[in-house]
Amino acid sequence: MSGVVVQNIPRADADVIAGLAKAGVATVHEAQGRTGLMSAKMRPIQDGVAIAGSAVTISAPPGDNWMLHVAIEQLRPGDILVLAPTSPCDNGYFGDLLATSAMARGCAGLVIDAGVRDVRDLRAMGFPVWSTSVSAQGTVKETLGSVNIPIVCAGAAVAAGDVILADDDGVCVVRRDEAIGVLAAAEKRLAAEEQKRQRLAAGELGLDIYAMRARLAEKGLRYE
Amino acid sequence: MSGVVVQNIPRADADVIAGLAKAGVATVHEAQGRTGLMSAKMRPIQDGVAIAGSAVTISAPPGDNWMLHVAIEQLRPGDILVLAPTSPCDNGYFGDLLATSAMARGCAGLVIDAGVRDVRDLRAMGFPVWSTSVSAQGTVKETLGSVNIPIVCAGAAVAAGDVILADDDGVCVVRRDEAIGVLAAAEKRLAAEEQKRQRLAAGELGLDIYAMRARLAEKGLRYE
Amino acid sequence: MSGVVVQNIPRADADVIAGLAKAGVATVHEAQGRTGLMSAKMRPIQDGVAIAGSAVTISAPPGDNWMLHVAIEQLRPGDILVLAPTSPCDNGYFGDLLATSAMARGCAGLVIDAGVRDVRDLRAMGFPVWSTSVSAQGTVKETLGSVNIPIVCAGAAVAAGDVILADDDGVCVVRRDEAIGVLAAAEKRLAAEEQKRQRLAAGELGLDIYAMRARLAEKGLRYE
Amino acid sequence: MSGVVVQNIPRADADVIAGLAKAGVATVHEAQGRTGLMSAKMRPIQDGVAIAGSAVTISAPPGDNWMLHVAIEQLRPGDILVLAPTSPCDNGYFGDLLATSAMARGCAGLVIDAGVRDVRDLRAMGFPVWSTSVSAQGTVKETLGSVNIPIVCAGAAVAAGDVILADDDGVCVVRRDEAIGVLAAAEKRLAAEEQKRQRLAAGELGLDIYAMRARLAEKGLRYE
Amino acid sequence: MSGVVVQNIPRADADVIAGLAKAGVATVHEAQGRTGLMSAKMRPIQDGVAIAGSAVTISAPPGDNWMLHVAIEQLRPGDILVLAPTSPCDNGYFGDLLATSAMARGCAGLVIDAGVRDVRDLRAMGFPVWSTSVSAQGTVKETLGSVNIPIVCAGAAVAAGDVILADDDGVCVVRRDEAIGVLAAAEKRLAAEEQKRQRLAAGELGLDIYAMRARLAEKGLRYE
Amino acid sequence: MSGVVVQNIPRADADVIAGLAKAGVATVHEAQGRTGLMSAKMRPIQDGVAIAGSAVTISAPPGDNWMLHVAIEQLRPGDILVLAPTSPCDNGYFGDLLATSAMARGCAGLVIDAGVRDVRDLRAMGFPVWSTSVSAQGTVKETLGSVNIPIVCAGAAVAAGDVILADDDGVCVVRRDEAIGVLAAAEKRLAAEEQKRQRLAAGELGLDIYAMRARLAEKGLRYE
Repeated sequence: MSGVVVQNIPRADADVIAGLAKAGVATVHEAQGRTGLMSAKMRPIQDGVAIAGSAVTISAPPGDNWMLHVAIEQLRPGDILVLAPTSPCDNGYFGDLLATSAMARGCAGLVIDAGVRDVRDLRAMGFPVWSTSVSAQGTVKETLGSVNIPIVCAGAAVAAGDVILADDDGVCVVRRDEAIGVLAAAEKRLAAEEQKRQRLAAGELGLDIYAMRARLAEKGLRYE
Repeated sequence: MSGVVVQNIPRADADVIAGLAKAGVATVHEAQGRTGLMSAKMRPIQDGVAIAGSAVTISAPPGDNWMLHVAIEQLRPGDILVLAPTSPCDNGYFGDLLATSAMARGCAGLVIDAGVRDVRDLRAMGFPVWSTSVSAQGTVKETLGSVNIPIVCAGAAVAAGDVILADDDGVCVVRRDEAIGVLAAAEKRLAAEEQKRQRLAAGELGLDIYAMRARLAEKGLRYE
Repeated sequence: MSGVVVQNIPRADADVIAGLAKAGVATVHEAQGRTGLMSAKMRPIQDGVAIAGSAVTISAPPGDNWMLHVAIEQLRPGDILVLAPTSPCDNGYFGDLLATSAMARGCAGLVIDAGVRDVRDLRAMGFPVWSTSVSAQGTVKETLGSVNIPIVCAGAAVAAGDVILADDDGVCVVRRDEAIGVLAAAEKRLAAEEQKRQRLAAGELGLDIYAMRARLAEKGLRYE
Repeated sequence: MSGVVVQNIPRADADVIAGLAKAGVATVHEAQGRTGLMSAKMRPIQDGVAIAGSAVTISAPPGDNWMLHVAIEQLRPGDILVLAPTSPCDNGYFGDLLATSAMARGCAGLVIDAGVRDVRDLRAMGFPVWSTSVSAQGTVKETLGSVNIPIVCAGAAVAAGDVILADDDGVCVVRRDEAIGVLAAAEKRLAAEEQKRQRLAAGELGLDIYAMRARLAEKGLRYE
Repeated sequence: MSGVVVQNIPRADADVIAGLAKAGVATVHEAQGRTGLMSAKMRPIQDGVAIAGSAVTISAPPGDNWMLHVAIEQLRPGDILVLAPTSPCDNGYFGDLLATSAMARGCAGLVIDAGVRDVRDLRAMGFPVWSTSVSAQGTVKETLGSVNIPIVCAGAAVAAGDVILADDDGVCVVRRDEAIGVLAAAEKRLAAEEQKRQRLAAGELGLDIYAMRARLAEKGLRYE
Repeated sequence: MSGVVVQNIPRADADVIAGLAKAGVATVHEAQGRTGLMSAKMRPIQDGVAIAGSAVTISAPPGDNWMLHVAIEQLRPGDILVLAPTSPCDNGYFGDLLATSAMARGCAGLVIDAGVRDVRDLRAMGFPVWSTSVSAQGTVKETLGSVNIPIVCAGAAVAAGDVILADDDGVCVVRRDEAIGVLAAAEKRLAAEEQKRQRLAAGELGLDIYAMRARLAEKGLRYE
């Protein structure tokens, strides 16, 4: 069941992707009912960078990065590579040469449930990466995996063409067919948050703004 | 036994807290007999920041941040929020809205054996955080916990009003009733260290400064 | 079998060490057949620093840093301290005073499968460290270990005088008697990489540069 | 997007399930192209038990086992409960009372990416469990999750009605619509294995049975 | 602050301890408001054994088991040794010789946030142990710790004389001054559970026994 | 540097191996100065089994078990297979077919810093295994490793022909050229332990048998 490359995957609308990018991981995760987050072990190798794009998915054997070369050919500008090994592996599947190639195809970044290397170069090149490891450990090119099949990456199900959001808080997946609805919900949340932020900054308490006192008392909270 | 908010907790003297802050985590930890450190999994989300303050403690259920709203009302300027979930949880209990609220009450920072989110905003706001995770995972507000009861946070026992120190090395707890004595011991250590630093910088060996050679020989150290 | 200090260890040639430093961890690891890497849990406390030098090895009991004082006397300018505890331990074996002493002896850095403390000071002093933990936890000086005996540090075997490379990607060990050959292989790789980088940057695919298409087809890769 | 209970899910044929059970986790995993395994952290609480059945899936908040009561109503004889928390949690979601209820409905076992308790009773009752933790930590009943929606459990995607296999080696998921084909492939493997087992037991080498020597030589294996 | 042995500690009444033992870890944990559990990493080295007794606490340096000898002198029949290292350590602090000594003093078992060794002998001797590791790694006798001071063991605060319960589900701590009240609450739970068990075994659903349907509907649960 | 099979390795004397087996892991580890233990993550898949034998070492790529077939040809009766992957991997490298083959060659057991599968069969066959994982995850046969070269397995350096001891406490490596001396030291320990065991069983305290009281007082131990 491996050894497949799905071509011509559908993608979400560029405006929708851009809108989700503006909302950020935490807000979008809430807006879609607290679903779609990858594990907290998925960390950025850089600070202060946020990206969004369509997933080109890769299922790769442990210690074998052959499919990354295959996947790069499938990239369209703005896409994000999302790689999950078929079993836990911290090898450095991706370094400055692959980043050079991916950037030349317009790739917006990499999300990988494994390791990357040449991280100093990757930062200098401005190629954004979220990974579960940093490791120089080299890989081989011997065994097929697949490209653009459904995968589970760091605990989250990802289909090719899903929208991937990544920032300092982690990585969130939005299903392609839900992206428009999630964007609307996210924008509503952002508007509501701004007003609350001002009241909280002025010293009002969440207990009052959210009218929590009665419900806390009802649950039995005692002040001593 | 949960569902309690203790008000009007005692706090250490502001001068003592300031003195401990100056000494830093490593020195204070040594000065109190190598006790009171939280686990090394407790990491800052920012570099180069050191804080000290009185603990407002929070015991919260996994995935439920309701008690943070309750705790913020109990803050006095300079206090530090210290949250321990009742079982291991990496959710993002705290983000930019709660930080806005806590800062409006004069809160000096957050120490949490769980996750935080909106970390880019938190860094930009200058709100210091030590956490065991960064995660956008949202929480609910359904189950009571307690505020200002004794807790175990990242392996360290913390009582409300204990002095919390946090810097790049981690987080240390000083019991309120021992704070004055610990400060005195810490200042003595600092003075002694300065002299040693100068001798070591000049190339003298610790083996000689601390007169270790005889004891090493007695234990049987062999040079080959 | 502990309690030994081996003096006058052999070291690789300074030119060879400098050449390996220029190649970096990932390239050298590949050049020596994908061997010699320490575990990915070994992380730098600073960004953007790369060092290379001869290993002065330390085998130390858990929670006991006595042997660091012994080892510092054995340092020659450019050497790197490499410490492995005899069982897993995250204590802060090393801080600003020991760094002051090590720098006064010309030490190029520390690689430690345990914790360090005073990390803010270490960064300010420009003393490079790779460690598996940051912790203020203090240690004692009661039990002998050994200096310059063969150790296993973060999963890699290290003999005294082996060449240690460390950068943002991690830490690699090159056996002293293989250093010249590895350097030659690394330089060859660097030359080859530069040409590939230019072709990839121009948009050529790895699939074509490395002539992978035929072999992928032979293995059964299907495009859908 | 939570708060949904899907009723009347499709299930695989009982004969197919029984056939897969006989083949076991390792063989079935191979037969379906090395896919569908849950993480190795999923461990049985008993030895020597193997089960197979249709998945009734549960997505539950951390520390909240309410949906287990909802799911039990959806069980048909032979089904297996499969629970994934929405974020990592080791709480004891399930104990002897829930097992009593599930057994009364014909449930064949539980697979849970979290904790169970009363394990001595569960073993005595003969109710099989695979979990990632054993913990007495109690849970609440406050927040909705969902039943019979697609989940990711211990790294594997599971849809309601998929066939779950579990034995001492771990847990494997077979997609319902692939179950018949996978069973055929598994039975073919079993037949082939039996013959190889006899030859190996007689002292023949895998090197010869699988004709590996030429390919090893071609790859460059050197005997010294 | 280490180097202290507190003698003549208070203990709970033997009848109360026996009653708590009968209730078991999960029930007692619930009866005291879901508090007092040690981490799930604390595992028994044997199956099917349950103990209860008064805690004789030990704070020990990493890799140093000297204080175990000191603590054994403080044991009274039925007591349980509870050891926490001052920093994470997996060494084998305790083996068959110490078990022989502890059993000769009437010790009921060991709870240790570290390793034990000679586990085959310990099982054969019938000396019950809950530990976070099994390791043959030896320890030294060089540095003082303390006996019968308050400690944090595997995430739970323990004072000397607190009641310790341990069974296949893990370890629970009951504060000595709350033991009578907790026992009463536990016995009430046991009685209530028995009735529920019979109804559940007869096929009644928890949804009905606990009258959950209305509240689920109110929260918005949808059946599809 | 991989792709090498060293044949005709030296082995320790059978009597010495048998003697070490009788002493057990904990005693031998102490007898050789507390060195040579593998990490505590190396666990037996069976209880109550102890083995000793000469190491046939295997260095294998992640997810590739080809070299096991090569290594089995190198086995002599009583040898133990010791496999370390070149980077962390929990795959099931070894199952009942390979065990059948290894047993046919007289293999005494397997020690593997990775996973095994078919564990129910392995237990039934009486083939002893110590591993860091149990997993059905299959492997490929594509990339060379090496046999009988020096490896690091679970933190311990192992050379081909070293004596491997494994029991319920874990795994210990004795260097071949030190085996006779270590055996002598181990037998001395066993004799001394037996006498101590009798005194401890009679109720004498370690404090008195080992004359610890004076040294404890000198270090400052206070009884309160």
